Amino acid sequence: MASLMFTDCSSMSSTLLHVNGPRRGAILFRQCVGQLRLRSTASGRGCSLSIRCSSSPSSATSVDGKAVAKTIRDEIAIDVSRMKESIGVVPGLAVILVGDRKDSATYVRNKKKACESVGIKSLEVRLAEDCSEEQVLKSISCFNDDPSIHGILVQLPLPSHMDEQNILNAVSIEKDVDGFHPLNIGRLAMRGRDPLFVPCTPKGCIELLHRYNVEIKGKRAVVIGRSNIVGMPAALLLQREDATVSIIHSRTKNPEEITREADIIIAAVGQPNMVRGSWIKPGAVIIDVGINPVDDPNAPRGYRLVGDVCYEEACKIASAITPVPGGVGPMTIAMLLSNTLISAKRIHNFK
Amino acid sequence: MASLMFTDCSSMSSTLLHVNGPRRGAILFRQCVGQLRLRSTASGRGCSLSIRCSSSPSSATSVDGKAVAKTIRDEIAIDVSRMKESIGVVPGLAVILVGDRKDSATYVRNKKKACESVGIKSLEVRLAEDCSEEQVLKSISCFNDDPSIHGILVQLPLPSHMDEQNILNAVSIEKDVDGFHPLNIGRLAMRGRDPLFVPCTPKGCIELLHRYNVEIKGKRAVVIGRSNIVGMPAALLLQREDATVSIIHSRTKNPEEITREADIIIAAVGQPNMVRGSWIKPGAVIIDVGINPVDDPNAPRGYRLVGDVCYEEACKIASAITPVPGGVGPMTIAMLLSNTLISAKRIHNFK
Repeated sequence: MASLMFTDCSSMSSTLLHVNGPRRGAILFRQCVGQLRLRSTASGRGCSLSIRCSSSPSSATSVDGKAVAKTIRDEIAIDVSRMKESIGVVPGLAVILVGDRKDSATYVRNKKKACESVGIKSLEVRLAEDCSEEQVLKSISCFNDDPSIHGILVQLPLPSHMDEQNILNAVSIEKDVDGFHPLNIGRLAMRGRDPLFVPCTPKGCIELLHRYNVEIKGKRAVVIGRSNIVGMPAALLLQREDATVSIIHSRTKNPEEITREADIIIAAVGQPNMVRGSWIKPGAVIIDVGINPVDDPNAPRGYRLVGDVCYEEACKIASAITPVPGGVGPMTIAMLLSNTLISAKRIHNFK
Repeated sequence: MASLMFTDCSSMSSTLLHVNGPRRGAILFRQCVGQLRLRSTASGRGCSLSIRCSSSPSSATSVDGKAVAKTIRDEIAIDVSRMKESIGVVPGLAVILVGDRKDSATYVRNKKKACESVGIKSLEVRLAEDCSEEQVLKSISCFNDDPSIHGILVQLPLPSHMDEQNILNAVSIEKDVDGFHPLNIGRLAMRGRDPLFVPCTPKGCIELLHRYNVEIKGKRAVVIGRSNIVGMPAALLLQREDATVSIIHSRTKNPEEITREADIIIAAVGQPNMVRGSWIKPGAVIIDVGINPVDDPNAPRGYRLVGDVCYEEACKIASAITPVPGGVGPMTIAMLLSNTLISAKRIHNFK
């Protein structure tokens, strides 16, 4: 029931800090003061945990993505309202859901709810699992031409009979709030160029570092995982901010050794508890993107969610770490809302 | 007169080796067996050298870019001829030169000569320094529409009154043989996507590693420099080949320490002799992209060319290293010819 314990722990000791810098503003800065005890399990990868919150100065700051995301959503709501009052425009997000995967339906529902909470208009198109690629392309084309829509999102994965690349490429670059278009990625990689949108999850990771005032410039950063959706763009973002970046992947021979050199670790590999305490440089800041279900007969649903980083080991060595859940997860949707607002502002030239 | 000495040295001990693998073929594999003696100069960065070629088993293999480029040009000439005979198509490269910079004129002349040597048709448009951006765009547009042109190259730098980004973006992505278009860079960065063209100099670096049968997969690679033209795409290419890549730049605090971990070093920073022997892991392979003129009263022109790596120190520690000149330099033009041929083949669906 670790995930519940995290949640309980997170609600116990929140303090409001004011962080310097024009774009920081007031943020919630929570110090997790949990006393962590490690219980080894049979699996080398598994690290079961038992947390009791108490005062322990050696514990890392728990980077509270839930609280930061809430702050960002509040900021967005203010901007959306200001835009509506000033020029009568409401940002609009269109979501295309193909098939009836339950997880996808849940994600889409959550995105719609998040839109509503900040005043962004959301439209949803549901297409049958066996619909044709042309039908999806037609929906995209309609939204590309619709001036009330500023962001278009095609919920992945698509049914296997469809060409994902072809479909994603059809989304107008000006409305590609997911930021996955190669032209956006190219601009992200190039000095002197700017992407129209930054992919949501990596943007959320960097935003957490900013909001917690973590210095990136000149620091060594390691990104574990090189997916198009998280690892690769996260590495490009860190590099844009002048970190010295190394990317670790399945072919890396000594990931532990390289990770131990990092001041900032972004783990996005989808391997439960892969990054152990011995991988971490004392004082490092850890952003854990992994959300992995592991069996837990004591949990209400028979499983619990853990990250790519063994939290209870890392917590003793790192200076700050995102919990799972409640770390990066809530930031992804907040960044989707942010990208939709940015798009509407750009299209309507609203500052 | 070090550069002359390099040339002399390179001509003394060439041996023809056959390297495994379908795309390797026969290559020239030259072992530089120079006895290297270091003479320190007043400048901490300068490392003057005196080479006498003799048998010394501890010296690195000199990666002979000149010979490899010659082999590649011969391969291209065969393909160009085969294409002409089979379908009557001659690959065509258009070069646009604006202004009268002497160095640019020399580069363009060399490119034209290289085209002629392999049977590629080259067209050149020269525009006055004070011509308008529209005139350049008009030339590009003509070549975009010209079916006999398969590659378009705008010689950089452009006069300061022009918007370089705007002009480069006007080149059709299908004819962007320089590979600098953000869409190409984006595809280069993404897994599961392929760029239409890979930028010439980084492509040349990787080709040298291939032709010398250097294993990249699973190796640690350090790229020094993060330019859009060399460093960044070189890092992306190494990553595509499953190296574990770190990028070092001006904000990196401990470049020496990080470089010393690398099995493969690509230096592209434009700092003469920056990478010293102490930076290099024994047995590393070094690709030196830098071509820096340094004062030398003994040289016929009063200067000589040196790389970013202090050759005479590196030569004792590395297992292989590209000389400057004669290393990466000749590869860049060879890769431009290769990209033009690839483009013609793709446009005419010729295998």
